[in-house]
Amino acid sequence: MFKDPVHHSVYVQDATIWKLINTPEFQRLRRIRQLGTTYLTFHGAEHSRFSHSLGVYEITRKIIDQFERNRYKDWPQEEKLVSLCASLLHDVGHGPFSHAIEHVFQTDHEKWTCDIITGDTSIHRVLREVGEDFPGKVADVIRKTYGKPIVVSLVSSQMDADRMDYLLRDAYFTGVNYGSFDLDRILRVLRPYQGAIVVKESGMHAVEAYLMARYQMYWQVYFHPVTRSSDILLRQIFRRAGELYREGYRFGFLLPPLRQLFEGSLTVEGYLSLDDALVQAAFGQWIHEEDRLLSDLCRRFQNRRLYKYITLESLDETFLDRLRKEWVEIGLHPEYHLEMDTPVDLPYDLYKPGTEPDVKEKPPILLLDEKERVSEISARSEIIRSIAGLHQGKYYIYYPEEELRARASRLKPETRELLNLQ
Amino acid sequence: MFKDPVHHSVYVQDATIWKLINTPEFQRLRRIRQLGTTYLTFHGAEHSRFSHSLGVYEITRKIIDQFERNRYKDWPQEEKLVSLCASLLHDVGHGPFSHAIEHVFQTDHEKWTCDIITGDTSIHRVLREVGEDFPGKVADVIRKTYGKPIVVSLVSSQMDADRMDYLLRDAYFTGVNYGSFDLDRILRVLRPYQGAIVVKESGMHAVEAYLMARYQMYWQVYFHPVTRSSDILLRQIFRRAGELYREGYRFGFLLPPLRQLFEGSLTVEGYLSLDDALVQAAFGQWIHEEDRLLSDLCRRFQNRRLYKYITLESLDETFLDRLRKEWVEIGLHPEYHLEMDTPVDLPYDLYKPGTEPDVKEKPPILLLDEKERVSEISARSEIIRSIAGLHQGKYYIYYPEEELRARASRLKPETRELLNLQ
Amino acid sequence: MFKDPVHHSVYVQDATIWKLINTPEFQRLRRIRQLGTTYLTFHGAEHSRFSHSLGVYEITRKIIDQFERNRYKDWPQEEKLVSLCASLLHDVGHGPFSHAIEHVFQTDHEKWTCDIITGDTSIHRVLREVGEDFPGKVADVIRKTYGKPIVVSLVSSQMDADRMDYLLRDAYFTGVNYGSFDLDRILRVLRPYQGAIVVKESGMHAVEAYLMARYQMYWQVYFHPVTRSSDILLRQIFRRAGELYREGYRFGFLLPPLRQLFEGSLTVEGYLSLDDALVQAAFGQWIHEEDRLLSDLCRRFQNRRLYKYITLESLDETFLDRLRKEWVEIGLHPEYHLEMDTPVDLPYDLYKPGTEPDVKEKPPILLLDEKERVSEISARSEIIRSIAGLHQGKYYIYYPEEELRARASRLKPETRELLNLQ
Amino acid sequence: MFKDPVHHSVYVQDATIWKLINTPEFQRLRRIRQLGTTYLTFHGAEHSRFSHSLGVYEITRKIIDQFERNRYKDWPQEEKLVSLCASLLHDVGHGPFSHAIEHVFQTDHEKWTCDIITGDTSIHRVLREVGEDFPGKVADVIRKTYGKPIVVSLVSSQMDADRMDYLLRDAYFTGVNYGSFDLDRILRVLRPYQGAIVVKESGMHAVEAYLMARYQMYWQVYFHPVTRSSDILLRQIFRRAGELYREGYRFGFLLPPLRQLFEGSLTVEGYLSLDDALVQAAFGQWIHEEDRLLSDLCRRFQNRRLYKYITLESLDETFLDRLRKEWVEIGLHPEYHLEMDTPVDLPYDLYKPGTEPDVKEKPPILLLDEKERVSEISARSEIIRSIAGLHQGKYYIYYPEEELRARASRLKPETRELLNLQ
Repeated sequence: MFKDPVHHSVYVQDATIWKLINTPEFQRLRRIRQLGTTYLTFHGAEHSRFSHSLGVYEITRKIIDQFERNRYKDWPQEEKLVSLCASLLHDVGHGPFSHAIEHVFQTDHEKWTCDIITGDTSIHRVLREVGEDFPGKVADVIRKTYGKPIVVSLVSSQMDADRMDYLLRDAYFTGVNYGSFDLDRILRVLRPYQGAIVVKESGMHAVEAYLMARYQMYWQVYFHPVTRSSDILLRQIFRRAGELYREGYRFGFLLPPLRQLFEGSLTVEGYLSLDDALVQAAFGQWIHEEDRLLSDLCRRFQNRRLYKYITLESLDETFLDRLRKEWVEIGLHPEYHLEMDTPVDLPYDLYKPGTEPDVKEKPPILLLDEKERVSEISARSEIIRSIAGLHQGKYYIYYPEEELRARASRLKPETRELLNLQ
Repeated sequence: MFKDPVHHSVYVQDATIWKLINTPEFQRLRRIRQLGTTYLTFHGAEHSRFSHSLGVYEITRKIIDQFERNRYKDWPQEEKLVSLCASLLHDVGHGPFSHAIEHVFQTDHEKWTCDIITGDTSIHRVLREVGEDFPGKVADVIRKTYGKPIVVSLVSSQMDADRMDYLLRDAYFTGVNYGSFDLDRILRVLRPYQGAIVVKESGMHAVEAYLMARYQMYWQVYFHPVTRSSDILLRQIFRRAGELYREGYRFGFLLPPLRQLFEGSLTVEGYLSLDDALVQAAFGQWIHEEDRLLSDLCRRFQNRRLYKYITLESLDETFLDRLRKEWVEIGLHPEYHLEMDTPVDLPYDLYKPGTEPDVKEKPPILLLDEKERVSEISARSEIIRSIAGLHQGKYYIYYPEEELRARASRLKPETRELLNLQ
Repeated sequence: MFKDPVHHSVYVQDATIWKLINTPEFQRLRRIRQLGTTYLTFHGAEHSRFSHSLGVYEITRKIIDQFERNRYKDWPQEEKLVSLCASLLHDVGHGPFSHAIEHVFQTDHEKWTCDIITGDTSIHRVLREVGEDFPGKVADVIRKTYGKPIVVSLVSSQMDADRMDYLLRDAYFTGVNYGSFDLDRILRVLRPYQGAIVVKESGMHAVEAYLMARYQMYWQVYFHPVTRSSDILLRQIFRRAGELYREGYRFGFLLPPLRQLFEGSLTVEGYLSLDDALVQAAFGQWIHEEDRLLSDLCRRFQNRRLYKYITLESLDETFLDRLRKEWVEIGLHPEYHLEMDTPVDLPYDLYKPGTEPDVKEKPPILLLDEKERVSEISARSEIIRSIAGLHQGKYYIYYPEEELRARASRLKPETRELLNLQ
Repeated sequence: MFKDPVHHSVYVQDATIWKLINTPEFQRLRRIRQLGTTYLTFHGAEHSRFSHSLGVYEITRKIIDQFERNRYKDWPQEEKLVSLCASLLHDVGHGPFSHAIEHVFQTDHEKWTCDIITGDTSIHRVLREVGEDFPGKVADVIRKTYGKPIVVSLVSSQMDADRMDYLLRDAYFTGVNYGSFDLDRILRVLRPYQGAIVVKESGMHAVEAYLMARYQMYWQVYFHPVTRSSDILLRQIFRRAGELYREGYRFGFLLPPLRQLFEGSLTVEGYLSLDDALVQAAFGQWIHEEDRLLSDLCRRFQNRRLYKYITLESLDETFLDRLRKEWVEIGLHPEYHLEMDTPVDLPYDLYKPGTEPDVKEKPPILLLDEKERVSEISARSEIIRSIAGLHQGKYYIYYPEEELRARASRLKPETRELLNLQ
């Protein structure tokens, strides 16, 4: 039993789960923050992927227990262990500040997860004890190619255990109280039905509250422009370090796994030795590098001197080009000192029931009425229909304020006005 | 304003406070966990000294606001800023896993705090803007030598802002719900009175609940034998690395501040570059060191393979000597593979109103009755008297179970029985 | 100071407020449930209008304190006491199960509130101590005719102290956790501005959450069809008793204020002696009346044998007429044994910013952006726009199931099917 | 399923339980406040015995479910239904403001509970459906004479379902947050063992927190001197009305069950028609009685003009006699206008493990260690030992302040000083 602030307790009942938790690969998740650089915006958000992974496991366990207690025929009982293992392990391939690394170095945490599960690792060995083909089955669930879609949808759908845990957990640790919803109620109204997990009609309002919480978390936490700013800094550090490496720059400090990362030659073992501590220690050392750009970016990150931003309703390339030119004229690097961002690019999504690829990737939420008819939930709830259609298409421009302020006299008046540098 | 999960919000009203928070020295606290290795026992306990420090500031701010709102004469209004700064900065000298480092290398976080405040740092420069002697005043509050004891007692007494924040915060992040008490109520019943902060009689039950919460947190979290076990491992890593350094061992990985730490030549600058990330990255690298002992200890720490423990009612040296001899006989290092621990040594204390040095160090809790008579609270509350007298003098012996199990046949039968190795 | 489960504490600072709370008229609110018959659906909903009234006062006090702390010029400081008194007293004219009584006997609780404030009562005498014209001012605020609209809007607008308290309080006591929202955050973003209370732009998401909570409370609690059923029973009892009285029926039990109620000759004194206890005691006695209908309705109410209901998507008079005829044929009273209901009639409203009379009655929620431009909030928030447009136009038919079941064989087959009496 | 603010939901699984809840006798509990007159001190405490009874049922259900899930041999599975029924019904014999009525008229709610269960009632008929002897078995559990002590101890022991629910519920509704403890944790560490329910050793700290919460609730809520004052008023009203009835006084308002109560001739049917509404309606009418004393007491109760009190460390009869004489001299009735009270008399108890009759009445809390040894918990926990020994033997004197103040000049100077009437 683990004490957990979100679920009170996490119960481990199978020996396999217990052994998986105790592998070095899973313990490594303790050294990877769940929300990347978000702790620089919400100081409470220092929780790890370890605690989130336990949480996803716990929610899956509760869902399956409910299915079994109610003796629902449509739940394939023999799939319990594979579901629990996939839930526990679904994030095991995340690296430090994954999204930034994936963006810069084109890696893919889902692929790493499967490599860890099927490669020469302690996790693999524990799974093999269950059966020769068991690691492959777990990986298939994560790849969403597993034969039983109901198992996949436990871990990956519009209202899966992953999402339910991270919404509650991120709300708890950031202290944002809009992100809460009634998990117990939702767990009670789920039902396996013809290969899918559906929601009993009586639970419609609970799902509305869940989606509203999700909506609020996106706008208040995940899309927070200050977090976007620290993510940008992080990406730039990785970009600059990679660039320097390719140019043959000699780093004062460079550990093997980072070298492999820059070279694109990461092995599973090397990947597993990457964690937030190693990356952050490297940033601390890189402050002393000779390359001014890298050194400055790292100092900014360590001391939290983030880029400032302005918000725009619209944005076109002509405008950005003009700014880039000005940046060059005053001696700044537009590729590092000017970033544009809009939430559309982001790794988190809002509920959009209609979009085709989404339906395949993430099954929508289905409602089951008393007469056993199934319908997509936004067909029944006006409020969900309206949340689904929402978007706030703002644009943000990020830049180092101090550097611009120091050169303000050489900027065009309209740029000065735009950046409030009068 | 900072969003905080414990106090909802932390309000910053003075420019000085705002600037202090934005110094590199204060931002560094984001990279130091509040509870050291406790996250290996309670996975939620990943919160930093940064968030705790903001919390202590916030509680102090609330106490002083209440004093000013009530226009209490005994509160010296001109001391507000020095109190707030001392609250915010009281932990700024903590290093990574402080208690273990202090134990092994004889450093002292309070001294470092004062050095940072009075040395050549950004924090010092911000404080100097207030007045020439202001940094010295803040340091005096932390040293408990400040002329106005009431200011000292805000930060350092049996019911100070520091303690109130960490009890609530540690309870929140570990998920242990016994550690909660009614902060609002306590803040309401505090009063400055003749140079001390006293509790109005009507608040006695609230203080009882606070001390009960404290008692519960000590036994359930701070003295948790599994956390003690991870602390032991940490101390041993530092001990072994220091030993190797003194013996002239050539480390495969060694960063300057660690070298300074081993040499006892840490400068303020070097100390400030130490953080959890750097230490943990070093542990990750030391797994590959040639020294088997260091390598093994680090691998244990990273992979959370902690020493096991047994509990004893009493313990004497003869018995320990016997075990040490056996350890040597089977090829283990008693100085690393056998540790004894009893909560008495610990950095946290229970409420003991009577002890002399304590009274000086940590003023006791005083009750003010309607007739303006002051008494030490345990004279009035039987329940506090009884908590104050409690102690649970158990002894714990820690050891690497796998190594002993592998050599069990060569152990004496009584030792095998003691360690459940049958 | 009052201990309050919703706001923790309610602080009384003015002697006038203290005296008002201690008047018999205000104490009477302890004997009137806040949510009428809702306790028959949600057993926790046993809270009184007394606790709600204190809560409204407390929220108003906090709003004004924030205005004064921020020294906002647009808040007329001299209006504090009148605002607090109006907040505290706004519900003092509510009778037992008000909505039902108002419906049957055409009384009006707002008129009674003003009569109590301006009539020969202890409340009037306390208010007179403040000033000759003070009772009149308080009554004007409640009538919404007070010269300063900002004062009126504290107690009566789309996001007033009344509504904020009842949403939180009703959620707390029913145990429905969707009804919660971040009151502290909302209190922080309110600002007086040009005679209105506006919300700073940064608070838009908090208002979204508030309106979402309101939406959820309406559908889950206020419009709950079982509560509608108990309300119907209550109305029928009053209707039947009034009818009997007009017909000259001799009641076995009838107290003076009920007689006055039936006669339409209620004095302030008589009205004030009406409370839930008296009404409920009367129902208990009327079980023994000779009139079968009254006796049966009262027995149903006391023993919670409510009418059953079915839900229909649409409803027309022809259909109802057909049912009424059938009811007569089998010996039931359609005017008592058949009720139709649709939430449109209800005393609670959803947020509809556009409707004209509403704007006058209940000022909409206004957003103030950084450039001091004011806009109605649904112009800025898609989600609020969508909630504002929502309606669930279902129809409910209520009837005594046992009576119909006993006569099922004489009903038409389609009626039997409709009522599931096969 | 019932929505419950304390347990979130109350699950009803047996048809028998469902039918019992729907009997008129059980529905009557909705009209009886759980905490008598406490709502006059804590305005949130308006919750009914109905909600408490459901809560006790729910806790018992959870305990038994845990026993069955763990397949503990020492739990007699066939006793489930009788346990659930006894839990649900244990308070069904409570009358309005029971403790006051029991005190004045020597009735006994436990006896009434058994009479209702075994008499000619709907409850009896529902229980008879289970088996001829079933009502008798349920009554035996309530009388504590049932053959299986483990069943009795579920409902009646030092840590029974009754007590656990009322502590949590009363804390929730009063808003006193000291009264909370970790119910889930406690439910997890309970075990049936050799005919008793014991606590696993690992749960000792949870029990400490439970007893501490209980201690806090007693001193903050149950023994609150203002609640004692309203109880005194209530008892005096009953005493005076009974006295008048015996003297042949002709009441302006008197309902049959009150007449029976005064005569001591209450039938089960009469008793069941007594509820808070009827009593409170009577008080409202008795304000108009000719007897000045009764009229005044009732007016005080309705308008919450309670007697004032002073606190004394000790008290002797001589002193009281002196006061009584003075009261007579100035024209007051000492038997009504002077009351003495000390918590020792009260219906609530603190944990006193040693006391003999208690052990029989209320089995103490037993701890089961890993070696299956059982010990009384205070033998293991110093803190419980200390709470068990606590008592605060204060004395309170209650009196009508206005009447004494009006006659102050005729009181002795020392009496004036004592009552602060200078």
